[in-house]
Amino acid sequence: MRLKCKPTLIMDEIRVKRNIARMAAKARAGKVNFRPHFKTHQSAAIGEWFRDVGVKAITVSSVDMAEQFAQAGWRDITVAVPVNLLEIDRINELAGKITLHVLVDSALAVEKLISQLNNPINLWIKIDVGYHRCGLLWYTAETIIALAQVIDQNRNLTFMGLLTHAGHTYHATTPAEVRKIHRQSLERLSELKQQLQTAGIPRCKISIGDTPGCSLAEDFTGADEIRPGNFVFYDLMQLRLGTCQAEDLALAVECPVIGKYPQRGEIVIFGGAVHLSKEFITGANNEPLFGCLAATVTDGWGAPDWQAPLTTLSQEHGIVQLSAERLRMIEISDTVIVLPVHSCLTANLFSEYHTTEGHPIHRFQSMD
Amino acid sequence: MRLKCKPTLIMDEIRVKRNIARMAAKARAGKVNFRPHFKTHQSAAIGEWFRDVGVKAITVSSVDMAEQFAQAGWRDITVAVPVNLLEIDRINELAGKITLHVLVDSALAVEKLISQLNNPINLWIKIDVGYHRCGLLWYTAETIIALAQVIDQNRNLTFMGLLTHAGHTYHATTPAEVRKIHRQSLERLSELKQQLQTAGIPRCKISIGDTPGCSLAEDFTGADEIRPGNFVFYDLMQLRLGTCQAEDLALAVECPVIGKYPQRGEIVIFGGAVHLSKEFITGANNEPLFGCLAATVTDGWGAPDWQAPLTTLSQEHGIVQLSAERLRMIEISDTVIVLPVHSCLTANLFSEYHTTEGHPIHRFQSMD
Repeated sequence: MRLKCKPTLIMDEIRVKRNIARMAAKARAGKVNFRPHFKTHQSAAIGEWFRDVGVKAITVSSVDMAEQFAQAGWRDITVAVPVNLLEIDRINELAGKITLHVLVDSALAVEKLISQLNNPINLWIKIDVGYHRCGLLWYTAETIIALAQVIDQNRNLTFMGLLTHAGHTYHATTPAEVRKIHRQSLERLSELKQQLQTAGIPRCKISIGDTPGCSLAEDFTGADEIRPGNFVFYDLMQLRLGTCQAEDLALAVECPVIGKYPQRGEIVIFGGAVHLSKEFITGANNEPLFGCLAATVTDGWGAPDWQAPLTTLSQEHGIVQLSAERLRMIEISDTVIVLPVHSCLTANLFSEYHTTEGHPIHRFQSMD
Repeated sequence: MRLKCKPTLIMDEIRVKRNIARMAAKARAGKVNFRPHFKTHQSAAIGEWFRDVGVKAITVSSVDMAEQFAQAGWRDITVAVPVNLLEIDRINELAGKITLHVLVDSALAVEKLISQLNNPINLWIKIDVGYHRCGLLWYTAETIIALAQVIDQNRNLTFMGLLTHAGHTYHATTPAEVRKIHRQSLERLSELKQQLQTAGIPRCKISIGDTPGCSLAEDFTGADEIRPGNFVFYDLMQLRLGTCQAEDLALAVECPVIGKYPQRGEIVIFGGAVHLSKEFITGANNEPLFGCLAATVTDGWGAPDWQAPLTTLSQEHGIVQLSAERLRMIEISDTVIVLPVHSCLTANLFSEYHTTEGHPIHRFQSMD
């Protein structure tokens, strides 16, 4: 790798392709549709690597992203947040061009869609299986059935089924706990599906989402579709959760060293909140950890060096604590490889990836 | 204001101009040079409002920003982080066009500058007065004097003086504590300056920086220059510190409401970590608070409504807790005004400001 002069987003292409192939194989084995979430990478070029393993339909989290990937040739897209009706004009336009899926979790949203839509659209009812962010609670079958019936009766709306994001897997502390949440989510959705069928709604798919659940699940029985996104890169948060191995970490930020403070056992890097995001996990002594250096190896990067944590993050620079041994080997004007805590948010701060081989890969400007 | 269809960065132009005028007047009264930090706004247009109050020299935190503002006509720029020698080519080029100031805090950096510079440059020695991020510790006078002497002897280098950022004011819990740190910093720098003069270095300016200190200081005795940045917008973090009033908050994000959950007393907004950043302060019950809604008023926005905190932040959406009363008045497809915790990081996530009057104001793409 050539030394980078300023913070640079580095991607290990081999690892990314391996992460994609692994999840695709898992979906095939589990007999579920693989509809990956593209909010993590937001790159047309990386999207093609998914096409190479047979992916035809994708997930995004905004109308902006849906438009960008439609432009890149994707013809079946789910916008996996409750529909933002203020963007109805763009939704109508997109629905005229591609198979567009949106989420609803209220009668009001369905009502507004019915009155404002002029192109057919696929609707999923968003179910809250315990995360408590969006969705109708899984035990409110009556409300859910009533909503499905209204959808089913409208010419422009196709009721697809029940969709959830069991984001509470991110609060789990062990892989066993993640698996338990995954199973519980599928049970709750399957029960609801049965109630819908009893109520006279025969067609009802089940779509589930999160990377922890999809990475650790032993099977997907009950699901028709999975929508993980973060797995394409993984990150320290996932590694901490036990959902990936160190050798799956496919994204890093190369940062110049601009200060060295041996008396404190610290260096300062050019690389701050505007490059890494302020997402953190807790490190030693319960202090926030905003990333850590990778062990140095000849090609790419090694495993996380937890003894080299990024402990403080300013706008443009950050402090890394180092052992005396590692500190001796680093000087200003060197660069270091920082592994991010949350790859989705880190990638979002750059307009380009650089592969470890030195090729630039464009990312959509997700900046508003 | 027209309803915004997606998260939109809103700026109250009257408040911004008032914040600028107030700090400029304070600098004049305190007889110090006002060299505002432009990393907060990163906009050529807002830069002009500073020119209108007589500002001729500015501060930035990267070579990228220095280039952008040089392009916008600024001829005297300090890059207020330890110099990144990997960017020496661009530094050389800039130093050939404008009066460029950079920071050093090691003999190695000075040595490398001497061997690689081919244009004159102004050097400040960065002093650590207690924040412990960058700089030579204030009580290591011998090292500092030796460094100043090396600088003074080089043809291309002009020794300007001592520069600090007393960022530990951000950890203060009361205005009195902020003022104490401010006074202490100036005392430490003044003592050092005297030691430098005794050692035969007569010309030595003192430059100080942080918004809390500059906002709350009663005087700047001992300083030659102040470099605050955040004060242009202020934010909830500053308000909490007591460095500004609610009516000084000049930046907000307008966000569509996409979900309403009366049983939880919450709404979900289209507006997430990619719009607000994951910076937080602690709210009630010591929970993280990523922002809060403003009280609704006819024009612009009212004071922070601490009873409407943004408690959870996903990539694209967030959860706001609301009182039953306020919840009743909000429906999906409305928009709400979110006041950010850290305006520098929030502004960094957008490419444009919209004034409350509806005018777009361009921001440099700070994305790498």
